[in-house]
Amino acid sequence: MTPDEFREHGHALIDWIADYVEGIEQHPVASTVAPGDVRAALPPHPPAEREPFDAIIADLDRVIVPGLTQWQHPSFFAYFPSNTTYASILAELLTAGLGVQGMSWVTSPACTEVETLMLDWMLELLGLPQRFHSQSATGGGVIHGSASEAALAAIVAARWRATGGAVNRTGTDPSLIAYATSQAHSSIEKGLRIAGIGTEQIRHVPHDQNFAMQADAFAHMVADDLAAGRHPFFVCSTHGTTSSLAFDPTPEIAAVATANGMWLHVDAAMSGITALAPEYRWVNNGLDLADSYCTNPHKWMGVNFDCTLFWTADRAALLGALSILPEYLRSKAAETGAAIDYRDWQVPLGRRFRSLKLWMTIRDGGVATAIQMIRRHVNLTQQLAELVRNDDRFEIVATHQLNLLCLRLRAGDAATDGLIDAANATGQALFTRTVLDGVTALRFSVGGRTTEEHHVLAGWQLLQSLVPTA
Amino acid sequence: MTPDEFREHGHALIDWIADYVEGIEQHPVASTVAPGDVRAALPPHPPAEREPFDAIIADLDRVIVPGLTQWQHPSFFAYFPSNTTYASILAELLTAGLGVQGMSWVTSPACTEVETLMLDWMLELLGLPQRFHSQSATGGGVIHGSASEAALAAIVAARWRATGGAVNRTGTDPSLIAYATSQAHSSIEKGLRIAGIGTEQIRHVPHDQNFAMQADAFAHMVADDLAAGRHPFFVCSTHGTTSSLAFDPTPEIAAVATANGMWLHVDAAMSGITALAPEYRWVNNGLDLADSYCTNPHKWMGVNFDCTLFWTADRAALLGALSILPEYLRSKAAETGAAIDYRDWQVPLGRRFRSLKLWMTIRDGGVATAIQMIRRHVNLTQQLAELVRNDDRFEIVATHQLNLLCLRLRAGDAATDGLIDAANATGQALFTRTVLDGVTALRFSVGGRTTEEHHVLAGWQLLQSLVPTA
Repeated sequence: MTPDEFREHGHALIDWIADYVEGIEQHPVASTVAPGDVRAALPPHPPAEREPFDAIIADLDRVIVPGLTQWQHPSFFAYFPSNTTYASILAELLTAGLGVQGMSWVTSPACTEVETLMLDWMLELLGLPQRFHSQSATGGGVIHGSASEAALAAIVAARWRATGGAVNRTGTDPSLIAYATSQAHSSIEKGLRIAGIGTEQIRHVPHDQNFAMQADAFAHMVADDLAAGRHPFFVCSTHGTTSSLAFDPTPEIAAVATANGMWLHVDAAMSGITALAPEYRWVNNGLDLADSYCTNPHKWMGVNFDCTLFWTADRAALLGALSILPEYLRSKAAETGAAIDYRDWQVPLGRRFRSLKLWMTIRDGGVATAIQMIRRHVNLTQQLAELVRNDDRFEIVATHQLNLLCLRLRAGDAATDGLIDAANATGQALFTRTVLDGVTALRFSVGGRTTEEHHVLAGWQLLQSLVPTA
Repeated sequence: MTPDEFREHGHALIDWIADYVEGIEQHPVASTVAPGDVRAALPPHPPAEREPFDAIIADLDRVIVPGLTQWQHPSFFAYFPSNTTYASILAELLTAGLGVQGMSWVTSPACTEVETLMLDWMLELLGLPQRFHSQSATGGGVIHGSASEAALAAIVAARWRATGGAVNRTGTDPSLIAYATSQAHSSIEKGLRIAGIGTEQIRHVPHDQNFAMQADAFAHMVADDLAAGRHPFFVCSTHGTTSSLAFDPTPEIAAVATANGMWLHVDAAMSGITALAPEYRWVNNGLDLADSYCTNPHKWMGVNFDCTLFWTADRAALLGALSILPEYLRSKAAETGAAIDYRDWQVPLGRRFRSLKLWMTIRDGGVATAIQMIRRHVNLTQQLAELVRNDDRFEIVATHQLNLLCLRLRAGDAATDGLIDAANATGQALFTRTVLDGVTALRFSVGGRTTEEHHVLAGWQLLQSLVPTA
C-alpha cells in the first residue's frame, strides 16, 4: 500500500467506521452465526495475489459484521459496559501510526512520560490517595491491558514482599495463603494459579446477603491460618463484583491486612471509574490503606479496550518481583533513577503507546461526557428497578446502587434461563446470566455510550413480553 | 466528538500519519529529550474544558514526535526489526472502530474464527508442522500480545502437564527444574519467576562459541537433576537469540526433552518469520518435536505491535492450566466443544480483535512484500559484514546468518561503548549494545520497512568516522 493509497483507503475506512457505529442498531445485538460459519465464509488458504482494498471492505460487511456481537449497540446489556468514543478510536489509529515501543523510557520517552502523567491526571480526576501518585515516595501507576494482568502484578508483588524477595531464588512458598470471596473476579484465582498458588492455598471468605465480604470471617480465617503456621499474604477486595456490583468493606478488610502485613489489592475494574462524578466518590472508600488498585477506563469512561489503570503504593515490591535487566535493555536514564522503565511494571516486555487513548479522550472533553453518561446509566438502572418491582412475576436479587440490575423470574431458575435465551434470540437486546448463591439471575447491565431511556424500556418490555404464561 | 467531527478529524489524522511516516527521516532516530522534558511540556493537571482537535494535533508535532525514538526510521538499527505497514495501521483502526471483545467465541464469533483461520494460514505460509493446526487432534494457535506472554503460557502448560494437573490444587512444586541458555530472552526467566519457579530451579545450559546451546551439556544436566530426585519439566530452545540471533540445536534438545517427558518451547520471536521465504525454512528445524512455538509478525512481517503467534501441540495442557469458568462466562457453544474460547489460552480475560492485522496485511499482498524485505535485510547484513571484515579496527563477534551483525572495536569494551554512544548522539542512526561472553558488542540490526542499501552504508560510515584515533 502506497502512502497515497493509505490516505485514500484510510479516509474510506474512517467513513466506514462512522457508518457502522451510527448504523449499529440495524444489526441484531448478538450474532446469529453458528460455530464455523465465519470461517466457512472465508478462503481456507491465504490468497496468492494481492487483493483490492474494496474486497476487504466488502468482506467486512459480508462476513465480519454479521459475525460480531455488537458491543457498541445501545441495547447491549450483557457482560460489562462498553462505550467507545470516537476520540479513543482516533487515538488507537495514532498509536498504530507512530509504531513505537514503550518498554523502557529510552525506547520512546514520550510513551513513558505521557503514561505517567495520565495516571497522575486520572488520580486527580478520581480523587485517589496521593500514595499512588508517581511523584510520591513509594507509589506510582501504569496502564495494563486488563484487570487480569493487574491482579497478577499485584499477586507477584505481594509474594515478593511476603518472602522478603526470597521467592525470586527459591520459588513460591507453599505456606502462602490468599483470600477473596467467591464473588471476586475469576482473574484473581487465575492469577494466583499462574503464580503457582494452588486452590488449597486460596480461601473463599464468606459473603453477606449483599454479596460483600464478611470482614469478621476474614479476620477469623487469617487467625486460623496463622495459628496453623501458614502465611497469609494477599487479599483482594472488590469494588463492584462482576456478578452483582457488590462492594467489599475495604476499610475493615484493610485493618486485618495491615495488622498482619498482608498485601491488599482493590479490584474496581467494573466500578472505580464512577468516582469521576463527585457524588460517587464513596467507591474509593478504604483506598488510603490499599497496596494496589485497578479500574478500567475501557469499561465506563468511553476509552476503548485495552486500558486498565493500575496503581501501587509499593513500587519497590512490584519492581522486585518483575524487574530483569539483560544487557540489551540497559540504559543510563533508568540506571540513574531518572526514568521509569514500565516493562518492570508488567508481565510482557513490549508495550503499545496506550496512554494516547486517555490523553485524547480527556482533552476531547471525555470526562464531562463520561460523568453525564455514568449519571444517566445509574438513573436508568434505578428507573428500571422501579419497573421490575412493580411486576410481581419478577424479583430483584441483589442491591443495585450503580448500573447493574440482577433480576429473575419467581417461577425459578429454568424459567429465568429460558427467558434469557428467548430474549437474546430476538436480537433486540443482549443479556448475560449469572448465579448468585445458587440462584440463576439475569444481569441487566446499562452501559452503552448511546443507551437512552427508550432502549432500557424496550429491553424491559421485551423481557415482560417473553415471560411464559403459567 | 460527533460522527461528522470524527470523519473530519479522522481524515486529517490519516493524512498526518502519512506525512509523519513519509517524513520520518527529518527526525533524529533517537529523541534528544532528557528525563522529565516531555512531562514538563504538558499541563500538570487535566484540562477543565474541551480542547479543539487542532490543539491535540499541534501537540503531536510540538511534544510527542520530538519525544519519540523513531522505530520506523530507516536508520533505526536498534533492538529488533520494526516495519509497520500501512495496511496494518488501518487494521488497528478497524479493530478500535468495531470495539468488540474476543474473550469467548460467543462474545464475538468472528473475532475468534478469523483468528483461528489466520493462525492456520500462517502455519501454511511458514511451513510449520500440522500438529499445530487448529484442526489437528491436539494442537492449535492463538495471538498473544508478546513473546513474553507466550513464554508464560508455555511454562504454565508445562507445569500443569508435569504435575498431572496437581499444580492447580497444591501450587508449584519446588522440585520442578527448567533449562535454557544465558542467551535465551529475559522473558523466559521472568515467566518462570512469575510462575513461582525460582532461580535455584533454573539451569543455564552452557552454549558453544556460536552462542547456541550445547545439547550434550543439557543432557548431562537433566541426568544430574533426575539423579538428585528433581523433576526436569521445561526447556526453551531459541531460534534467533536477542543478543546475536544464535540458533539452539532444537532436534538434539528435543531428543532429550522427549525422552524425559519435558515440555519443549521454541522461542523464535526474532527470526521465525524468516520461514516465509522458502530458502530460510531451516529456521523451523526441529519444530515437529516441539510442544509450543512462537514467532512475531510484529518483528519481521510488517504487522504492527502487538502480534505474537503462539502454537501448541498440547492444547489440553494449556487449557488445564488456564481455564476457569465462572457462571457469567458460560456459553453453550463452548460447552459443546464446537467453539474455542481464547480467554483460556492466555493470561488476560479480555482480547482485542488483533487478527485483523494479519488478515489485512496478508490480503494486501504483505507476504510477498515481507519476503522481499527479509531477503533485502539479509543481503544488506551480509554486505555490511564484508565491509566490516575489511576494516581491521573492527571485528565481528558472532555468526550472522540473517539480519543482525554483532561487531566491536578491537580497541576494547570501553572504546566500543564510546562508539555506540557517539553514534547514537548524532541522531543519524540508532544502535543497541549487548554483552556476549563478557565482551561488549554493538548490535547492527537491519530491519526497517524502508531501510535500503544507502542507509546501511551511511550507518557503517558513521561508525567508521567516529572511531577514536589511537
